[in-house]
This record gives sequence, C-alpha cells and structure tokens, in this order.
Amino acid sequence: MRFKFSILALFLEVAVIVLYGIFVEYDRNSATALYPHFQDVHVMIFVGFGFLMTFLKKYGFSSVGFNMLIAAFGLQWGILMQGFWHMKGGKIHVSINSMINADFSTATALISFGALLGKTSPIQMLILTLLEITIFACNEHLVTEVLKATDIGASMTIHAFGAYFGLAAAFVLYRPGLTKKHENDESTYHSDMFAMIGTLFLWLFWPSFNSAIAGEQGTAIINTYFALAACTVTTFALSSLVDKRGKFSMVLIQNATLAGGVAVGTCADLAIHPFSAMFIGVLAGIVSVLGFQFLTPVMASKLRIQDTCGVHNLHGLPGILGGFAGIVVTAIKHETR
Amino acid sequence: MRFKFSILALFLEVAVIVLYGIFVEYDRNSATALYPHFQDVHVMIFVGFGFLMTFLKKYGFSSVGFNMLIAAFGLQWGILMQGFWHMKGGKIHVSINSMINADFSTATALISFGALLGKTSPIQMLILTLLEITIFACNEHLVTEVLKATDIGASMTIHAFGAYFGLAAAFVLYRPGLTKKHENDESTYHSDMFAMIGTLFLWLFWPSFNSAIAGEQGTAIINTYFALAACTVTTFALSSLVDKRGKFSMVLIQNATLAGGVAVGTCADLAIHPFSAMFIGVLAGIVSVLGFQFLTPVMASKLRIQDTCGVHNLHGLPGILGGFAGIVVTAIKHETR
Amino acid sequence: MRFKFSILALFLEVAVIVLYGIFVEYDRNSATALYPHFQDVHVMIFVGFGFLMTFLKKYGFSSVGFNMLIAAFGLQWGILMQGFWHMKGGKIHVSINSMINADFSTATALISFGALLGKTSPIQMLILTLLEITIFACNEHLVTEVLKATDIGASMTIHAFGAYFGLAAAFVLYRPGLTKKHENDESTYHSDMFAMIGTLFLWLFWPSFNSAIAGEQGTAIINTYFALAACTVTTFALSSLVDKRGKFSMVLIQNATLAGGVAVGTCADLAIHPFSAMFIGVLAGIVSVLGFQFLTPVMASKLRIQDTCGVHNLHGLPGILGGFAGIVVTAIKHETR
Repeated sequence: MRFKFSILALFLEVAVIVLYGIFVEYDRNSATALYPHFQDVHVMIFVGFGFLMTFLKKYGFSSVGFNMLIAAFGLQWGILMQGFWHMKGGKIHVSINSMINADFSTATALISFGALLGKTSPIQMLILTLLEITIFACNEHLVTEVLKATDIGASMTIHAFGAYFGLAAAFVLYRPGLTKKHENDESTYHSDMFAMIGTLFLWLFWPSFNSAIAGEQGTAIINTYFALAACTVTTFALSSLVDKRGKFSMVLIQNATLAGGVAVGTCADLAIHPFSAMFIGVLAGIVSVLGFQFLTPVMASKLRIQDTCGVHNLHGLPGILGGFAGIVVTAIKHETR
Repeated sequence: MRFKFSILALFLEVAVIVLYGIFVEYDRNSATALYPHFQDVHVMIFVGFGFLMTFLKKYGFSSVGFNMLIAAFGLQWGILMQGFWHMKGGKIHVSINSMINADFSTATALISFGALLGKTSPIQMLILTLLEITIFACNEHLVTEVLKATDIGASMTIHAFGAYFGLAAAFVLYRPGLTKKHENDESTYHSDMFAMIGTLFLWLFWPSFNSAIAGEQGTAIINTYFALAACTVTTFALSSLVDKRGKFSMVLIQNATLAGGVAVGTCADLAIHPFSAMFIGVLAGIVSVLGFQFLTPVMASKLRIQDTCGVHNLHGLPGILGGFAGIVVTAIKHETR
Repeated sequence: MRFKFSILALFLEVAVIVLYGIFVEYDRNSATALYPHFQDVHVMIFVGFGFLMTFLKKYGFSSVGFNMLIAAFGLQWGILMQGFWHMKGGKIHVSINSMINADFSTATALISFGALLGKTSPIQMLILTLLEITIFACNEHLVTEVLKATDIGASMTIHAFGAYFGLAAAFVLYRPGLTKKHENDESTYHSDMFAMIGTLFLWLFWPSFNSAIAGEQGTAIINTYFALAACTVTTFALSSLVDKRGKFSMVLIQNATLAGGVAVGTCADLAIHPFSAMFIGVLAGIVSVLGFQFLTPVMASKLRIQDTCGVHNLHGLPGILGGFAGIVVTAIKHETR
C-alpha cells in the first residue's frame, strides 16, 4: 500500500492544481459576511465528524486522521464538481459561499465513511470520495436547479444520500468475520469522551449548517435549535427506557441527539412555528433510537450490511423523515393559501 | 429509575411543546447580528460547563451527558419562563436574543449541578432545573426591570445565584459517607486534560458571555479580556505559592483562572479603565484560590456542605466580589459627576 | 522555585497594571466587526497551540498549562510593547485590533516554547516571554513601518522569528542526556488524540489568522484555505511514503498539515490565484515532512539543538519558504506592470 496510496494522492493533488489553474478564479463580488457561518460548518466537518467516530477504541486515529484526509481532498474536488455547473465565462468563481457548499459536499463522503470505518483502505476512501462527490454534485444540481425542490438543510441530498451510498458500499465490502460483535467494535471510557467532543460541536453548530445558505437565516437557526433541544430530551428518555437497567447509552447520546438537526433540515427555513420544529425533533429522536436499538443488528445479520457508526440511524432514517416533513409542510401551505 | 425518569422527561417535553404551540412565535424583527455571540455562549454552556466538570475520573460521562440533558431541557424552559415576563399580544417572540438569555438561564442550573455532581439522580436534576430556572426568571425580572440594577455580566443573578442555590441543595443532600476524600472524588491525568478543554472554551468565550446583551459591547469585551488575563497570572502565582512543593494545582488552574470573568461581570460594560478590570481580575483570582484551598474543606467538614466541583469558589465568591465592585464603581461615578 | 516564581509573576502582574493605569485607554472609535476573527485567533493561541503540544505523554499539563500562563501574560505585555510604537497623546488605545495583534505577539513566545518544552522552568519561560515579545514588537515595527515590507500572515516576523528564537534558546539550554530518544519524549494513543484537537483548531482557524488584519480579507481567507487543503493531502502522501511499512505518522499529520498556512502567510492577501496558493501549500508540506524526517535528528545529534516539538519544521522552514514566495510574487507583479 505504501507506494500506491502516495502515488495516487500526489497524482490527484497535482491534477486538481492543474484544473484549478485552468478553471478557478476569485469571485470579485464575494463578501465575507458568511465567514462566521462557514467557520461553524468547517468545525463540524473536521472536528465534529472527525471526533464523533472516535468512540471505537481502535479506530481513534483512523477516524480523525482519515476524516481530515477525506475532507481536505474532498473540498478541493467539491469546488470543481459543483463549480462546473455554475461556470461564468468558462471560469469557476470561488467565494465563501462556494467554500460552504464544498464543505457540504465533503459531508456526504464523511457520512459514508462512517458506515465503512474499519473496512476500507485509504486508497479505497480516496476513490470513494472522488466518485461520491461527483455524483453528489450532479444530484444536487438535478434536485435544486432542475426539479426546484426545497432542501435547504439538505436532509435528503446530503444526509440520506451519504448514508445510503455508504450502506451500499458496506454491503459490497461485507466480511462475514465481522458479523459477530467484533472486539475492535467497542468503546472505552476515554474514547467515548473524545466522541462527545464531536457530538457537541456538531450539535452546537447544526443551526449554522441548516442556515448557512438559507434565505431566512434567522428562522432556520431558531427551528434547528428547537428541533435539536427537543430531540435531545427525547433521546435521553428513550435511551434509559430501552436499557434493561435504565442506564443511558453513550452511543445513543452521541448520535441520536443529532437526528433532530438532520430531520428539520428540509423545512428549517420555513415558518413552521417552533412547536412543529420541536415535534420533528421528537420524531427524529424516536426514529434514531429505535434504529440503533433494533434495525442495525438486524441489518448486520440478515442483510449483511455492517454499519460501523450507525450512520443509517443518524443520517439515513432522519433524512427520510425530513423529506416527508418537507412534503407535509408544502402540502399544508398549498392548502391554506 | 428506568421508567420514572423516562416518563417524567417525555411528559415534560410534551408539556413544553404544547405550551410552545400556544404561546411561542418567531420574532419577525429579529436580526442575526448577535448570532456569533450566541454561538460563543452556546459553546460555553455545552462544551465549557460540560467538560469543566470531567476532571473527576468517575464522573466524566455524568458531567458531559447530564450537562447536555440539563441544558437542552433548560433552554426550552428558560425561553418560556423569561418570555412570560415580556409577552406582547399574549405571545412570546423568540429571537437570537431570547436564545442568549435562555442559555444564561440554563447556566444557573449547570452551576448548581457542579455542586451536586455525584449526589443526584437524573430525575432530581430535571426537577431542580425546572425549579431553579423558574425562580431565576422571576429574580432576574425583579433585579433588572423592577430594581433597575445594573448586572450585565450577571455576576450576582447568574453566578452567585446558581452557586448558592446549588450549595443549599448540597446541604440538603448531604451524605456523611462522602465527607472523607472519597476515592471517586479524584482526578486522573486524562480526566484533567478533558477538563482543560472545558476551562479553555469558557475562558476564551467569557468576553462574549459578558458582552452578548451589553450596550457597550466593545468595552465589555475588552474589560473581560483583561480581567481574565490578570486573574490567570495571579492564579498561577498563588497556586505555586500554596503548594508545599511549589507545584501548580490543576484544579486551581481549571477553575480559579475563570473567576476574573465572573467578578468583572457586573461592571464589564462600564468605562472603568482596563487597569481596574485587571485589578478586579487579580482580586477574583486571590479570592478563588483561597476559597478552594481553605474554605471548601471547612465547609465540607463543619457546615456539611459538599461542593463537588467547588462552584462556591468559581461562581459564588467571585460573584459577590463582582456585586461589590459594581456598588463601588456606581458610587465613584456619582461622586465624580 | 516555590517562592521565586510566585514573587516574579505577582511582581510582573502588578507592574503591568501600573503601566496600564498610566498608559492604556479604550479606543473610542473601536468597532466590534473583527470580533469573530479575534475569537478564532484566540482559540488558536490557547486551544490550538496548547493542545498541539500535548502529544508528549509526560508533558500534557505542562504544555496546556504553561501555554495558558505564557499567553495570558504575553497578551498583556504585547499590548504595551506594540502600543508604545503607536501612542497618540501619550496614550495606548486598545481595541479589538490591538487584541488580535497581542495574540500574534504571544504566538512567537508559544512557538519558541514548543522548541523548549521539557527543558525550561516557569521562571525561565516568563522571562523569555518578556524578552521575546519586546524584541518582536521592535522587529515588527521595523519590518512593517520602516521597511514597508508586506508580511500579512507574518510568515517571517512571527513564525520564522519564533522558531529561530526558540532554537537559539534550545541550543543554550542543551542537555547531553536528552540526545538519545528520551522515554518522556514519546506519545501515547490518547496524548496523540489530544494533540489532534490542537491541530484541527489551528488548521480550521488559520484562514482567520492570515486574514485578521489583512486588507483583502476574502482573498486571504481563500488562499489560506486552499494552501492548507493542498498541504494536507501532500503530507498524508509523503507520510506514508517515508514510513517503512507505509503507515501514517501522527506527528507529521499533527504538524506538517499546518505548514501550508505558515508558508502562504506572506502573500495570502495578494491575488496570486488559488492554484498558486495550493502550490505553495504543496511545497510547504514537502519541506515540513523532510524537515521532521531528516533534519531534526541531525540537528539534535550534530548541532546540539533539541527541538522538542519540531517547531523548525512547522514554523521555521515554512516561514522562510513564505518569505521566498513573497519575494517571487512581488517580483512577478513588478514585471507584469
């Protein structure tokens, strides 16, 4: 692997620089007003996703390190792939806005990585990142430009897309030896503490994720904030309920508390009232906890899909829930007109 | 505890959503200019308070986890309780400003939790949060609206209030078996490192805490910044002085370095000159170190008040010092007119 | 050391407060627009530098703790030293801008500390901080005001200056017993995870560091962002290449990934095109990895300079590279006029 990975990575970096030399320019009209939003999203991508996956005691370095590699390559690639759909005069113009969108595109690859942690080599991850971000950019163009669908927080295009892409790859990379609870597939006291760093920075900055490119930023911030708070109380309640001794499960608290942010994404910038945002948060918490508790074990044993970090329950199911919420909200708006 | 906690938490969440459905609306005139300030305070509440308490080796999960539960429920409750005092047309209007105030209200419950860590169940903490935030909102209304007292950084209404509320609860929950230095009441190398994450994010964002809702934001930022810096140098000096071998004490560095931010809170937005802010910081460092070193052991053995994280020395005494500073500053201003 | 350190620290703090009483005033025209930038830089100084150095298992507390002491004293001293060069009416006027510059001045002392970790006492570090920041302020004045050289990200005046100052001190403090790989000079699994917290916050906020006081903020942000991303991919590629088994080295990933931010500093705010920024990032990654791998061991054994954290490879060499890049860019701009 020594030379193969190095040669591939260097080749990709050189190719990217050449493409940037040909196609990429500064956006002269760019403002820095969105820079604080960008920084929040940036922290989510590198610290949030990176540390969230450290709960497995043997994969601490892999998760933080590979996360950094995937994201650093992915954002360069994402700017190209998304930029090709919006060229002006044959040039891609980069701005803070492009950088936020590039971070979004890497999120899909990082979510998929969560399903594959411990099963893939760096080479496989680089190639998967390349492919997934290319497909994501096409799909996003289709959804937002061609179909004109509303998907601000990107419940579907980022979260559900990244989760199911990752699950499909996990199915392909299935290894029977891993079906039984593998000894590497465990957390320790300190690995769980590191994971909480990831959880908290994701939780705290999710309102920025859902509002960064929204029209109604204030509304998107408030809705996401309430959805997350309600989802968190629900997760603690259910976590204690599904445990035989009534104890809290760290894996649920690390993951299911975030499902509210995913689910409210689609309609975050609509005036759905705070209580609806909270209701979506509660539903997301329920779906996510049930997914972790009952669906993931069944998927691993029956469907041969091993979802290392449970991205299906954090991004997949809540993403679909968000899609449904978007449909319902749009239907009600039409009705009440 | 399994069903009791789950039922209580779910009941409270449903009740809150119903109340939001009836009373809570978006504030249509809300701007997002304060959003970066809000995010800083938000990080303090969840990462700062959460990790600061992780220095006890056995309570890492409890501190970060319960902290998240208390804060997530507390902010929903705080918006209701504070909002009831400022309703317009029978509605509570939420904005970034309300979210900052809600975070402030949860801070009181989290400070009290610091005194109670290891002695309370999740059910007790939920009820305490409910009660304390309700009382806080009434007290805050009394102090700022009725008495028209200046208390921007809330040295008294948040810090001293939270500390003494917690100490009162600690007195009620006194357990003789815990008087002697309990073996759980110790730190380890790594638990101390996690706690430094909490300390640093509190220390760094304290200027945002004291300036978030201040009129003179710039002044509040600068004063808090200098008070903290001076307090930190003082704490290191005294920490080495009170140790027999001249070594630094991690618990002092984790806590007393923050006392300057508490103490300068009351007069942070007044033009007291940077050197006065630094002087308040030095005094706060002295008071806090002496409190940890001499007062806390006496309180545990004589008064039967076990203050697990020493919140009396970080929030209680510096909060009172801040109150005094406010009185002195106001008196001088009157004199010089 | 018990009394000596305490007396020195308290004496310095009192002296600083007296000087502030005489010389320092609020800047009445100060705006808070740069506050988010300041906070990013502030996080880099205290969390970034503090945790980056925790990878040595025995020096976790020393690095985070001393880092906090040095920075808290250094910023107070830096405002005075830098302020003396810009007094108006015999007064130093502090603003958010001064606070950013003060953080920059402490960065030099913290970089030097990285070369000295494990070899110095707190007293030595306080004196070194005092001296280094004084010299830095004079040198900065010379470079930017007298020579009118462009050095926005301060590749040379901060990074190279801090590194070579620290290496000179390391040469003076050389101890033969430390030449052989000392058993304290090792990392553990968890110490490496803590160090990644430092790396990531430095990496994420480096665009703020390079743009905080730049004219063309947007350009400086974008160039730094691309330089870091390209440097990171390069570092991963080379890290695997120079390892016998093709494994990634944590020390390289923790440090060399940041070299791109240092090297692009000098010309970050110039319109050098994104691909040039990426090219500078790639060169910085190469220089830094080669430095860690081949130069540091030679310097320790032949030149008797023990660079504990390898600051020469993170700040020294990339800083010089940045200086060269600045010269080349300026020459090309003149040519094309």
